[in-house]
Amino acid sequence: MSDPQQCYDELLGLVRRASLLGSCGSVLGWDRETYMPPAGNEHRAEQLSLLAGVAHEWNVNPRIGELLDQLQDSELNDGHDSDSVVNIREIRRGYERARKLPQRLVEEMSRVTALAQHHWARARADSDFAAFSPWLRQIVELKREEAAAIGFADGGEPYDALLDEYEPGALSAEIASVFSALREELVPLLEDMSGAERRPDTSILERDYPVSKQKEFGREAASAIGFDFDCGRLDITTHPFCSGFGPGDCRLTTRYDQNFFSSAFFGTLHESGHGMYEQGLVREAFGTPLGTAVSLGIHESQSRMWENLVGRSPQFWQHFYGRAQQLFSESLSGVSQDEFVFAINAVSPSFIRVEADEVTYNLHIMLRFDLERDLISGRLQPEDVPTAWNERFTSDFGITPESDADGCLQDVHWSAGLFGYFPTYALGNMYAAQFFAAAKEQITDLEDQFARGEFAELLQWLREHIHQQGQRFPANRLVEVVTGSPLSNRPLMDQLSGRFRPLYGI
Amino acid sequence: MSDPQQCYDELLGLVRRASLLGSCGSVLGWDRETYMPPAGNEHRAEQLSLLAGVAHEWNVNPRIGELLDQLQDSELNDGHDSDSVVNIREIRRGYERARKLPQRLVEEMSRVTALAQHHWARARADSDFAAFSPWLRQIVELKREEAAAIGFADGGEPYDALLDEYEPGALSAEIASVFSALREELVPLLEDMSGAERRPDTSILERDYPVSKQKEFGREAASAIGFDFDCGRLDITTHPFCSGFGPGDCRLTTRYDQNFFSSAFFGTLHESGHGMYEQGLVREAFGTPLGTAVSLGIHESQSRMWENLVGRSPQFWQHFYGRAQQLFSESLSGVSQDEFVFAINAVSPSFIRVEADEVTYNLHIMLRFDLERDLISGRLQPEDVPTAWNERFTSDFGITPESDADGCLQDVHWSAGLFGYFPTYALGNMYAAQFFAAAKEQITDLEDQFARGEFAELLQWLREHIHQQGQRFPANRLVEVVTGSPLSNRPLMDQLSGRFRPLYGI
Repeated sequence: MSDPQQCYDELLGLVRRASLLGSCGSVLGWDRETYMPPAGNEHRAEQLSLLAGVAHEWNVNPRIGELLDQLQDSELNDGHDSDSVVNIREIRRGYERARKLPQRLVEEMSRVTALAQHHWARARADSDFAAFSPWLRQIVELKREEAAAIGFADGGEPYDALLDEYEPGALSAEIASVFSALREELVPLLEDMSGAERRPDTSILERDYPVSKQKEFGREAASAIGFDFDCGRLDITTHPFCSGFGPGDCRLTTRYDQNFFSSAFFGTLHESGHGMYEQGLVREAFGTPLGTAVSLGIHESQSRMWENLVGRSPQFWQHFYGRAQQLFSESLSGVSQDEFVFAINAVSPSFIRVEADEVTYNLHIMLRFDLERDLISGRLQPEDVPTAWNERFTSDFGITPESDADGCLQDVHWSAGLFGYFPTYALGNMYAAQFFAAAKEQITDLEDQFARGEFAELLQWLREHIHQQGQRFPANRLVEVVTGSPLSNRPLMDQLSGRFRPLYGI
Repeated sequence: MSDPQQCYDELLGLVRRASLLGSCGSVLGWDRETYMPPAGNEHRAEQLSLLAGVAHEWNVNPRIGELLDQLQDSELNDGHDSDSVVNIREIRRGYERARKLPQRLVEEMSRVTALAQHHWARARADSDFAAFSPWLRQIVELKREEAAAIGFADGGEPYDALLDEYEPGALSAEIASVFSALREELVPLLEDMSGAERRPDTSILERDYPVSKQKEFGREAASAIGFDFDCGRLDITTHPFCSGFGPGDCRLTTRYDQNFFSSAFFGTLHESGHGMYEQGLVREAFGTPLGTAVSLGIHESQSRMWENLVGRSPQFWQHFYGRAQQLFSESLSGVSQDEFVFAINAVSPSFIRVEADEVTYNLHIMLRFDLERDLISGRLQPEDVPTAWNERFTSDFGITPESDADGCLQDVHWSAGLFGYFPTYALGNMYAAQFFAAAKEQITDLEDQFARGEFAELLQWLREHIHQQGQRFPANRLVEVVTGSPLSNRPLMDQLSGRFRPLYGI
């Protein structure tokens, strides 16, 4: 028998090394979206495919399995949620998942999605679904192959296997049922709002907002809420994202629209929320489960909390509105703070998910969830996506996208192979509301702090209860540990009603 | 016996894969200098060290040795300078060199230099040599260890082993003798110039040159001479460089000084020259010797040719001066083309190598060559570098740096572990002049083409004779093949005399 501590150290070393290699791929992925010249794409695809392939080789190194077996019954795997128990548990989960994926599939997926993303970007610019359709077909086939290789529990479906990558332990049927319950309460709220007499004047957000000042303001707000620019950057991409490269380096991106205030500003708060989670991970635990975010749903809870629960609150603007008026004096002169807050909280059906309001956003997700579930099950063919999208969109939102750029081509996810990712966005909204309700209970005068421009206590609370926990608890247990209750629609619906009923006077 | 073609294909596959991994490191290295936030440096050092270590593991894969042995007496290794003969020869050279380097040393070097570069940048900003001195000592020790591991021919010296990485086959003693011959002719030319009555008015270059317009002009000129921005970028760094990531992606950097025209403009032409070499390599041969630049001296010949022989020629400005006057109308109004051309060709002792004129530049190199040779031999201690530098500088240039920032801290090379690199700059000047003289013989009206803004024929000539050759010939043979003569000081001295004697009226 080997010494358990030695086995454990060797195990962590192997896992850290693979994470470190993965983080090199993150740099190349970020560069591809931000600064890479157009003709660099093919070579970049080869680079990313190589890194993904090597990382996969390392992740399935049989030595990891041997070490896990040796540690299984050791004192290091004894007790509840201790550091070593957590690391052993999560490393085994990842190892067993990775072992089911053939090397060829991993490299092929990386290569194809790298190429597909540029074709998607072009197809989106030209609103030309036909140009993207063969790529979507290729990716769906690879994802179906992946789902089959990974497998799923009895009574489940192939989509479960994909979902598990982003929200470990979640099941399609359970999510469908949570979504359906949420939908039942959302639709009446939406109907009440659409019948309301009070309407926000959203045209004030569509005036002239010079990009340079938007940049300045976004950066100020991101710093104020706690994103550390010594350890990160903010750049411009078509599709905003956050990529944490590792300790001391987290990259955010956003996009600017001179004639729409909300896009970049709330996008920046959103990505900052992701970024602060990454910046709050335990530095020394980099590359191990304890230094890694627990799930995408939890990640999204952080971004949505800062974007919506903080960033669209009246209190936030009590502090920031003066500065906004100073920077955008022409567009905001004569606009009261209340009018502005109502405008940024306008609820109305719209085509673009990332710019959707807090209420309809969840319907955008449900649409995508259902469509991609059908793509993976084979019930929907890739070339039929535009029709299916537009039919469902019309039925849910009462409006029909005029182009696929505003419809099924709007998101980067499918071209990137991210099937099973979308539902985590709506889960994130629910987690966010539940965490925020707990924070409000535990921190007296929380929202008054926002009005004073103070955000450190909330960030500290999130650091302690969520960021620094890494993967100590699976997402569903983390919610219980932090809030005392299992995940529920209640806090989200309470929060939405609490904000929107008074605004709309219903 | 295995089939030689199979062995050869497997060999190229292994070598390409290692190059592809190396090119991932190039992306991370570029990002470190351009966009990485300050706190990202430590993690970046770990990433780069990992990539360097893995690439080294792959480069010393014993399978490469087996395949080389199997190919040694095969028909693929038969004949002169055929594709396979060249690849086998150069892969063996690289393999044997790499095998001599212990894995630990490779990783340590990568880690230490990654950290040291940030310490150097800070030390340079503060002109604080003492802060950099321990890093320099550490690097010199590692380089001495490297030199000992690689070894050198009888009668040679440790520095030969380092030089060989950048200028394969070159020997310290030979370079010393070439430099000494060059020096013998340079010094009298300089003396003649310093006694000349005609003096350029360099103050016209120190007027107001708005950075945004410098950017525009530099980009226009780089495009005009043939750098392809669809396959590359131009960014800003403290120390300008060019990094070719692979087919379709080559990154240039420069730095802007609002009150000095030459720095960014000629820097951009210089890096574009490097970039066009990278862009001219045979795409399909990426990662193999035939798709790789032959030596740093040859690389530098391309940058110096475009920077100086083209970019500072009167004919170049016959085409571009109108545009310069248009962009910088305030600073250049009333300045004649001749005055401007004289100013950008001013020769005068100065502290900063990268901004030195064509004549004194070579003396800057000789100083560094002698000092680093002494550091590697142990004749000079790292902490004594400032004194040694200033004494030699005063004796060669008649002026003494007032700070180490303007003296021994000015260059990035030592902090990056690039010992043996400097002499390739002066070799590059000699190669450039010799190639350019050959091009002028073979292309009628070459310089008249510049006056018409036409640069494509020169670029095509360089593509064919140099870029597309990759490593078919070692540098010293390439010069003979292309120009018909071995490397000589003659073309450089003829070129310098031909340009500067008329300008200075001597």
